[in-house]
Amino acid sequence: MNYPMLRYLFGLVLLIEAAFLALPLGVSLIYGESSGVCFLITMAAAGILGFVLTRFKPIRRDMYAREGFVFTALAWIVISLIGAVPFTLSGQIPSYLDAVFETVSGFTTTGASILSDVEALDNGMLFWRSFTHWLGGMGILVFMLALVNMGGQANHLLRAESPGPTVAKMVPNMRKSAGILYGIYIAMTAAEVVLLCLGGMPLFDSLCTAFGTAGTGGFGIKNASMGAYPSYYLQGVVAVFMVLFGVNFNVYFFLLMKKYAMAWRNTEVRVYFAIIAASTLIITVNILGLFSTALDALHHAFFAVASIITTTGFSTADFDLWPQLGRLILVMLMVVGACAGSTGGGVKVSRMVILCKVLGSELHKLLHPRSVKVLTLDGKSISRETIQGIQSYMTLYFLVAVVSMLLVALDDLDFVTTVTAVVATLNNIGPGLSLVGPTGNFAIFSPLAKIVLTADMLFGRLELFPMLILLMPSTWRKH
Amino acid sequence: MNYPMLRYLFGLVLLIEAAFLALPLGVSLIYGESSGVCFLITMAAAGILGFVLTRFKPIRRDMYAREGFVFTALAWIVISLIGAVPFTLSGQIPSYLDAVFETVSGFTTTGASILSDVEALDNGMLFWRSFTHWLGGMGILVFMLALVNMGGQANHLLRAESPGPTVAKMVPNMRKSAGILYGIYIAMTAAEVVLLCLGGMPLFDSLCTAFGTAGTGGFGIKNASMGAYPSYYLQGVVAVFMVLFGVNFNVYFFLLMKKYAMAWRNTEVRVYFAIIAASTLIITVNILGLFSTALDALHHAFFAVASIITTTGFSTADFDLWPQLGRLILVMLMVVGACAGSTGGGVKVSRMVILCKVLGSELHKLLHPRSVKVLTLDGKSISRETIQGIQSYMTLYFLVAVVSMLLVALDDLDFVTTVTAVVATLNNIGPGLSLVGPTGNFAIFSPLAKIVLTADMLFGRLELFPMLILLMPSTWRKH
Repeated sequence: MNYPMLRYLFGLVLLIEAAFLALPLGVSLIYGESSGVCFLITMAAAGILGFVLTRFKPIRRDMYAREGFVFTALAWIVISLIGAVPFTLSGQIPSYLDAVFETVSGFTTTGASILSDVEALDNGMLFWRSFTHWLGGMGILVFMLALVNMGGQANHLLRAESPGPTVAKMVPNMRKSAGILYGIYIAMTAAEVVLLCLGGMPLFDSLCTAFGTAGTGGFGIKNASMGAYPSYYLQGVVAVFMVLFGVNFNVYFFLLMKKYAMAWRNTEVRVYFAIIAASTLIITVNILGLFSTALDALHHAFFAVASIITTTGFSTADFDLWPQLGRLILVMLMVVGACAGSTGGGVKVSRMVILCKVLGSELHKLLHPRSVKVLTLDGKSISRETIQGIQSYMTLYFLVAVVSMLLVALDDLDFVTTVTAVVATLNNIGPGLSLVGPTGNFAIFSPLAKIVLTADMLFGRLELFPMLILLMPSTWRKH
Repeated sequence: MNYPMLRYLFGLVLLIEAAFLALPLGVSLIYGESSGVCFLITMAAAGILGFVLTRFKPIRRDMYAREGFVFTALAWIVISLIGAVPFTLSGQIPSYLDAVFETVSGFTTTGASILSDVEALDNGMLFWRSFTHWLGGMGILVFMLALVNMGGQANHLLRAESPGPTVAKMVPNMRKSAGILYGIYIAMTAAEVVLLCLGGMPLFDSLCTAFGTAGTGGFGIKNASMGAYPSYYLQGVVAVFMVLFGVNFNVYFFLLMKKYAMAWRNTEVRVYFAIIAASTLIITVNILGLFSTALDALHHAFFAVASIITTTGFSTADFDLWPQLGRLILVMLMVVGACAGSTGGGVKVSRMVILCKVLGSELHKLLHPRSVKVLTLDGKSISRETIQGIQSYMTLYFLVAVVSMLLVALDDLDFVTTVTAVVATLNNIGPGLSLVGPTGNFAIFSPLAKIVLTADMLFGRLELFPMLILLMPSTWRKH
């Protein structure tokens, strides 16, 4: 392990977090909230520590895969531990464990909450809570890479933090890639804020809602989530933007470069839209009886599908009361997740597509044992390493899910609560079904279960391997 | 497709089934039941048809993988359609769809039942119902291979019918291998019958119980399943034999050959025993409060674990009433299943072991990108084909499960019923939880759901691919 390099990077992360804490501090000042001082204290502490850690630049700047994974996992834990401080310091979330759960849920863009009354929080706190989604969605390390030139080392960090089976390089220069990503991200967020304001949503609400949408997080600032804005226009804007933020950002890059054919050819995005269309249609028919018009049913079905497949978790209706078919489709969409290279969570559509292609080639081989077929996606062949990586990802995914469910089951809550709590956190959705459904919250769990679910959110956001490598004893042995 | 060859093989299967129908006929005669005539009619019809179909031996005897899969799937459907006739003909299961469900459940060794009152059946019917388990456990095609010398063609059939990622060849000659398998199978069944009789169980009950154990099927002849025999000795014998029938039969072959080191080295069997021990221990602690002594808890925990992991489905206690942790472990064991090359169902322990080994090597590669590691199991290297085959199996497994759950969800029964009904049939367990728990039955489902669950039992028993290939339009196109 190159500890001096890790120290330096931790310092950078702390400085960035301190800088971002200025935003909720500003909000507190505008609204004249005394809890603003908690942001100031946290900011000062993080800033001073970051300043000290970055004073001495490391001599050796080399980093290997192991350092990349360990640093990514630890960095996410550290920013969460610090980001939780203002909540507890102000007394608005008295238990520090709960505050950490809430902050991890924010940064990992899960949106699962331990709060039963969100509206009791100060505006500064609400802003910070939603802003963690925005920062975590594209990734705090990606942000760091956009600021600091790290050369080849950046590869390991980007790989550990970016979702999907392969890392997309938009341009050969990592720093430029990271910059383009954030550029698109900021532009889209701004567009949503403008559209929401035009629909009559207050600026503060628009900002927080856009943060939650952009990161596909799902923290609302109202107890009724998006149900508090009954306008179909506002809900529609949010639904469409949820879908857009779940698209592989490479497609936007291609559109920017005017490479329309490349954008159109993207199999993952096409399958993603097909799944959304099919699920919306089936659920609309399934819930027709619960709404007065077919349009109402379509609206709520589309919102729920968009919210769940992108792993956002906003809600307009209590889908836990829908018929089994609709509920089951939503649970399955939780696992599918959005596109690779988006801000969404879950297993990712591209992994599903590749798994199905491997299955197709296996069937072909069973029937024609002597034939040879090369697997391709978007015109490129899929390497054996990618396929084996996905297989390992799926195995690890189920192992983590199984172990988590067993530990959460110790709380002896009902079956659906136990299972969907793990599925909803591991896939960074937010709400599950039953006691953790859209109208419930995660305060019901024991401290052990809360720790497990917090870890699951990190496992899910970082796509399992960085967290596992962090926890493996062999990582910490001298080599 | 070599249709003359397929015709000939179907004829053979019908003749074998007709011969086996003589057994329940004999039972009916002994008990003087008039329903015996239904066996006679079915026997005669199957026998005559089989006789006609086998009159002309095919000139070309070549068979390819495609024919092997199609024949295996169709043969299982045909024997089930015929095996169901006596139940409906006698009026004891009036609906033919229900009778087919029950017979498929028998042959696939699932043990899921649409009957609420098993004890209302005649003894002949009960015997036939349990005997289908015995026949389906080791496989009716394996039986055929033991009788008829098919040379190289047998490979395709054995591969399609035998559970597990690879087909074990005990001796180079297929016919001899099949014969050895059935020899071990008959000896172990006989041993169980003797031990049950020594414990005071009537011979008829002992035979039926042993058939259900040997095939890891789980049909009981009492409404209370094994709870009807409250003797710990009898329940213990059944539990131990369930575990033994879930062991890879290769191990018994090695023991017969006195190759003790080879038997002991088998990783799958060791992991299988480890899972049983760990699950029993955890569940015992989890259910301590429900029983008066720790020994009682241990007894019922061990019985339930043995019954579920081997996918038998006998029950001594209503495990649906146990705490969440225990219930969840049982649902997970349903998916794990028994060893490859045993009569048990599920995904199989060896697939799990190989998946974990692939994951381990992936982790190693992530941390040491330049190292090369060869995966081995029991001292033999695991081929890329085997790994890719398992990956495809898992993908197909989830696809079948997802589609089935969506179709069954149309019945709008509760979440746990919907999900565990599919898991319990696809893994050939028998009972699930909630409405299909140990005290419930599958009569509650609509005809569509019954057809889906019937197909799932066949998908599970034949390890997915033969059924999928049967249903693919491209299989039936001229090549």
